[in-house]
Amino acid sequence: MMAEKNLDSLFYDTLKDIYYAERKIAKALPKMARGAQSSELKSALEKHKEETEMQIERLQQVFEIFGKRAQGKNCPAIEGIIEEGEEILDEFKGTPALDAGLVSAAQAVEHYEIARYGTLKRWAEMLGLKDAAQLLDKTLSEEYATDEKLTKLADQIANQKAKAA
Amino acid sequence: MMAEKNLDSLFYDTLKDIYYAERKIAKALPKMARGAQSSELKSALEKHKEETEMQIERLQQVFEIFGKRAQGKNCPAIEGIIEEGEEILDEFKGTPALDAGLVSAAQAVEHYEIARYGTLKRWAEMLGLKDAAQLLDKTLSEEYATDEKLTKLADQIANQKAKAA
Repeated sequence: MMAEKNLDSLFYDTLKDIYYAERKIAKALPKMARGAQSSELKSALEKHKEETEMQIERLQQVFEIFGKRAQGKNCPAIEGIIEEGEEILDEFKGTPALDAGLVSAAQAVEHYEIARYGTLKRWAEMLGLKDAAQLLDKTLSEEYATDEKLTKLADQIANQKAKAA
Repeated sequence: MMAEKNLDSLFYDTLKDIYYAERKIAKALPKMARGAQSSELKSALEKHKEETEMQIERLQQVFEIFGKRAQGKNCPAIEGIIEEGEEILDEFKGTPALDAGLVSAAQAVEHYEIARYGTLKRWAEMLGLKDAAQLLDKTLSEEYATDEKLTKLADQIANQKAKAA
């Protein structure tokens, strides 16, 4: 008989979901950075790629603390979010609105991560996994900071350029 | 020759994206509410269904201000996010972790909306669509409030129950 599903099962499932998502994001970011027109957005996306690599390592540590092998689980949410970013790249290529669209796509990614890490952090606390909660909180803070940075980039550069067209 | 794509085009595309998403959400919420175990989560999801109907009407007003017909555009992001909520409903049905999982799924929906409305509001301001910006900001505030309410529900009820299992 299978053990009843509980908070442990949810935590593990969601950890696999975000692990899969982060690796997808790490692959998508260089493509977005190459597409970006302004050097500021390019460098913000490249920097976030490096940060994402660190976040993946942090997730591996969380799996270890939880006593399970790090593995991904298909995540249709991030597939859809990234697909919309690729549509922007295609449909706005060579137009002055491209960067504004890319920022918007990147912020949809950030918010997906903010939702998942916020949940995972609270679950880790409830499960008494203090070190895991700290690692998840560190990533959560980085995602918030990236989201704010993208808003500034949009206000200062991308949206102005798109509007001037 | 087609006009070059600019901030207007991006605003219109993203408006269609969230219009499609909101209508999908309005269909998904009653299913989630029926699945929820605690009366508190049930009623929070039902209340958010009503709020979503108002948000759809507000979007129709924004389309009108923008001078375009209200129409949706396929949004793979919300399809994926809702699909993950349905997985939770299936996989955790009848277990004490169901409500905690449903809250998590609903918060992923909220964060998608927060990302999109945040962007749309700023673009409306840049485009000088003051009334549209106000409508979008009203919805944005509601989404933040719903997200906070869900966090409280999780902390006070759903996560405790899932952990006790």
